[in-house]
Amino acid sequence: MFESAELGHKVSKGKYKKLVPALRADLLDAQIELFKHGKFPVVLLISGQDGAGKGETINVLYEWMDARFISTIAFSQPSDEERSRPAMWRFWRSLPPKGRIGIFAGSWYSDPIGQRLAGSMSKIELDAQIDRINRFETMLINEGALVLKFWFHLTYEGQKQRLKELESNPRTAWRVTKWNWDRLKTYDKLQKVSGHMLRMTSKAAAPWIIVEGTDDRYRYLTVGQTLLDAIRAKLAAVKNTVAVESAPMLPQPSTINLRSVLSALDLTQSLAERSYEKQLAQWQARLAELARDPRFKGRSVVCAFEGADAAGKGGAIRRISAALDARQYQIIPVAAPTEEESMQPYLWRFWRHIPSLGRFTIFDRTWYGRVLVERVEGFCTQADWSRAYGEINDFEHELSEAGVIVVKFWLQVSQAEQLRRFKEREKIAFKRFKITAEDWRNRKKWDAYQQAVCDMIDRTSTGEAPWTLIEANDKNFARVKILRTLCKRIELELDGGLKEI
Amino acid sequence: MFESAELGHKVSKGKYKKLVPALRADLLDAQIELFKHGKFPVVLLISGQDGAGKGETINVLYEWMDARFISTIAFSQPSDEERSRPAMWRFWRSLPPKGRIGIFAGSWYSDPIGQRLAGSMSKIELDAQIDRINRFETMLINEGALVLKFWFHLTYEGQKQRLKELESNPRTAWRVTKWNWDRLKTYDKLQKVSGHMLRMTSKAAAPWIIVEGTDDRYRYLTVGQTLLDAIRAKLAAVKNTVAVESAPMLPQPSTINLRSVLSALDLTQSLAERSYEKQLAQWQARLAELARDPRFKGRSVVCAFEGADAAGKGGAIRRISAALDARQYQIIPVAAPTEEESMQPYLWRFWRHIPSLGRFTIFDRTWYGRVLVERVEGFCTQADWSRAYGEINDFEHELSEAGVIVVKFWLQVSQAEQLRRFKEREKIAFKRFKITAEDWRNRKKWDAYQQAVCDMIDRTSTGEAPWTLIEANDKNFARVKILRTLCKRIELELDGGLKEI
Repeated sequence: MFESAELGHKVSKGKYKKLVPALRADLLDAQIELFKHGKFPVVLLISGQDGAGKGETINVLYEWMDARFISTIAFSQPSDEERSRPAMWRFWRSLPPKGRIGIFAGSWYSDPIGQRLAGSMSKIELDAQIDRINRFETMLINEGALVLKFWFHLTYEGQKQRLKELESNPRTAWRVTKWNWDRLKTYDKLQKVSGHMLRMTSKAAAPWIIVEGTDDRYRYLTVGQTLLDAIRAKLAAVKNTVAVESAPMLPQPSTINLRSVLSALDLTQSLAERSYEKQLAQWQARLAELARDPRFKGRSVVCAFEGADAAGKGGAIRRISAALDARQYQIIPVAAPTEEESMQPYLWRFWRHIPSLGRFTIFDRTWYGRVLVERVEGFCTQADWSRAYGEINDFEHELSEAGVIVVKFWLQVSQAEQLRRFKEREKIAFKRFKITAEDWRNRKKWDAYQQAVCDMIDRTSTGEAPWTLIEANDKNFARVKILRTLCKRIELELDGGLKEI
Repeated sequence: MFESAELGHKVSKGKYKKLVPALRADLLDAQIELFKHGKFPVVLLISGQDGAGKGETINVLYEWMDARFISTIAFSQPSDEERSRPAMWRFWRSLPPKGRIGIFAGSWYSDPIGQRLAGSMSKIELDAQIDRINRFETMLINEGALVLKFWFHLTYEGQKQRLKELESNPRTAWRVTKWNWDRLKTYDKLQKVSGHMLRMTSKAAAPWIIVEGTDDRYRYLTVGQTLLDAIRAKLAAVKNTVAVESAPMLPQPSTINLRSVLSALDLTQSLAERSYEKQLAQWQARLAELARDPRFKGRSVVCAFEGADAAGKGGAIRRISAALDARQYQIIPVAAPTEEESMQPYLWRFWRHIPSLGRFTIFDRTWYGRVLVERVEGFCTQADWSRAYGEINDFEHELSEAGVIVVKFWLQVSQAEQLRRFKEREKIAFKRFKITAEDWRNRKKWDAYQQAVCDMIDRTSTGEAPWTLIEANDKNFARVKILRTLCKRIELELDGGLKEI
């Protein structure tokens, strides 16, 4: 893994002085084109051994390029806001927007490597982490990001030498602590762990670039030139890609018969008013209890609501929120992304609303928009929505692993009932706003939507984040079923969770 | 203060049922117009005594309106990210964007009231807080926000009664704790403290609305109707205001002679290369030391750079960042606001980048854009930039009070030197992007800009956040003066700070 980075690469002062001006001019040009183009971000990981020149290299990049379009994000101990959310949340919130370069000093690799070195992570856990990292980076790349991963390598003797040099210079002596010398003792182990990690996460679209750390000039030039080539290549590729679908397509099975999980639902189920009032009160009281169960302090709930227009999402959400303390939940209506959101990967705008421990986030429409409305209306390519199923499963898996209880509801109404509700809404003043021309338009695509829903359920109803289908022709029945499902699910989770498969 | 809220206001069930449907329809209509209009946010404070129905009222508002355009923000203990920044940061980050309603369950009033009740805040400190709150709310209102502040009041007997009722109902019993009963014992003191606060912060544009908390129906109707009337009135006012300047103007003094703080600068000052190299190294080393001084862990630095185009801001910033660890600073280039930023008060986009403890944020152009480019180019009204001086002083005062070291540099170059640099930039490939048609255009307004700078310095160079004018015709001289000023200032602050006036 590291052989080529132990050859004693060196660049003379003369050669360096000759090469830098042109490289610098080109980098700046490329950076400006990147910014003007605004089509992809650069995610730049600077990793490697202590004393291998990570900080210095970042400073040189700042000097060569325009600092206005770069940000450096360093990760030390997570804050309590970060600790009370899934581990990947802090990286999601730090992603650079399109057109910019985000330098990661420390990254999603730091913690697994550190834990494995300290012996607090098993090999199996490490490999699970590696798998997760690969899926995350694949998602970034599919979303258009240029991912560049540098690892600065030193030999044992080289690292010892660097640490001594740093220590002897009064300006840099502070950077060398006992911790660094202790860490040098684990040199061989770090080589083994990082070597394994790098091998397992080096992919064609995001390979690790191992750079010998000894010679400053060699390191600066190598990183600068690699970055330049990569940005140029990506800019050219983006220009040439008109509408080529790059991700693999899902085969679209023809529907042999019309029987589906949706048509199999018994939409005639209903609940009489008196019985509804009683059961509603009962489950709301139960939900209120669960929300203040001491065990809930270490958990959180993400509630996802999907359903046709007028299926009763809003009313159901209000029956949940009525049982909760206003300080404990947030309702997030999902509409078109804002400018800042559209400069980020698709799931970014959902990650930003992930609740901290002890809290609820209720999404009124969700990340499933990509495989529902965006698919049916053609707002994204088939490649995009085809890969979304896997990305969404990964996303929900991240949440579940961190103790977030993910509860997903699909509210199903019949076409006749939807029509009745549309007409009713048009009559009642304070519901009038709820019915728009778009709603009438969507009705015409009923079958396409039903097919999309069935695919969604098939591909994303997982053990840890199952879909619950709600027969929603009768609002009373729907609301009670939703509240009951939510309560039972939280109960189950607080009692120790779903059985592992 | 509370007399009118002790009259035993009640609304019968029949009247309530009659009034609610119309109120609800109107509220929804108003809310939709607010959202479509998108011109101002509603900042809704729900405050008052324990058991006075704050949570219930918020739930009813959610039921009556569209939850998609409301968010409720509750403030309990600040997170560590919040604690490591000025106290107002958590409120700034929670402000609703234009077109939306943000309900504050707890607010900037909670902490002062709580601290005063607990005896940990003196009357004088309380009044300083009150002054600060008034200035903050005035700013919100000037920025267009509709600020509505409700205080739910109960008599002593009424509160005791409510707590007992809540306790006897199994669904609400959990809400009453020993803390509530203890707090009832301080009823009189709370009346005194909150009465004082409410009186001092009740202004024509943001009056406190005291609501008797005993009767649910009365409370719901009062809040709903008040909210409706206020949104309607504001919508009407916004429509009718075409270009009426509402804030007081600053008188514009005519310039008697051309002598100014800027013309008085000796721009011939320079530093020879050898001397520069030596001093630069010396001050960079000092800055590096200061940044890792243990005492700096409890402080942070906000560095503001302003200056004409080509004055050398970027180069100076790089000389600072080169002395720092990339993990310790962030450079924020200030350009046009994003969509999300433009939906917020002017200062919001700067607040979001305020560093946490132990860190630096360097702004390349700043919040002073309002009184420089926006003033000169007419991008905002005179009313807006006139009030900006005071708002900016308040902003920097908030930072200073919290231990943030605010260091502001104006880089002054002569017109001749600027021209020389423009021409030079056009020649050098990797600096070409830095010179645009706009730069040439701005040059024509030189005098107007110089006047704006002089006004800015006069009005915003405060003891706690002084401007340092940098003679920047010679880059060497400028960079060393900047680094030296920054170091001296941090030293002074770490040694106990500026003397109080």
